[in-house]
Amino acid sequence: MFKSRTFGSFTVGQFAEKTRVVTAEDVETFAKVSGDYNPLHFDREYAAATPFKSRIVHGALITSFVSGLMGMELPGTGSLVVSMKLKFRKPVFLNSAVTTKVEIMKLDRRGFITLACVCSVENKIVVNGEALVSFPRDESS
Amino acid sequence: MFKSRTFGSFTVGQFAEKTRVVTAEDVETFAKVSGDYNPLHFDREYAAATPFKSRIVHGALITSFVSGLMGMELPGTGSLVVSMKLKFRKPVFLNSAVTTKVEIMKLDRRGFITLACVCSVENKIVVNGEALVSFPRDESS
Repeated sequence: MFKSRTFGSFTVGQFAEKTRVVTAEDVETFAKVSGDYNPLHFDREYAAATPFKSRIVHGALITSFVSGLMGMELPGTGSLVVSMKLKFRKPVFLNSAVTTKVEIMKLDRRGFITLACVCSVENKIVVNGEALVSFPRDESS
Repeated sequence: MFKSRTFGSFTVGQFAEKTRVVTAEDVETFAKVSGDYNPLHFDREYAAATPFKSRIVHGALITSFVSGLMGMELPGTGSLVVSMKLKFRKPVFLNSAVTTKVEIMKLDRRGFITLACVCSVENKIVVNGEALVSFPRDESS
């Protein structure tokens, strides 16, 4: 079920990618956890009066896609996010297909991995940045 | 329902704070959105064999508390996160009472607000960093 890797199997340039449509239900579910019911995300009329013209998805929901891909795929099981910096470049609208990609940029012998993180919609970058993740060096080895 | 402010009403040092207990249900709800079913968060036996000894909460779930506080309280309605950088300093265990605080560090005439973000559990910092948020300058003014 989980992809478990050893630290030694990682290489710079290795990447994982996943595309997912973000729905109104995701936005509602996310609000339950975050407590963020900002009308930009929930109120059609309010959003219509903003420059976005339409409800947009929480930036932190897109952040969770990045975190999920790292936790499940690369580096995968056992990895822990140490720090993360992201720029939210464009609004993401409901029902967009968001492609999240994480790519290994740097490997540190002490068990730290730096990954570039990019989310895009129709080939346009909506969110990007990087994450530092720790990974147990001796797992399954 | 929403606290709507004008840009001119913000001052450096202004802050908002909220304490919330993070439950196993929150972790399950968050996984539905993020897709992150990493066993560190879900598998009691797996977690028991790690240095943490016990299941921990997703870092990105704690990130969502920061984002929620900014969206709902300070700067509040209409604010949009432009960028965010956070360090995950300590693990957060299930049923911890997490206090999230955001404080205005800098105001930029063009409508950008820099906030310091701190999450703590029993007065120990678990997550901290900063966010750059945009806020419509002429809203309700």
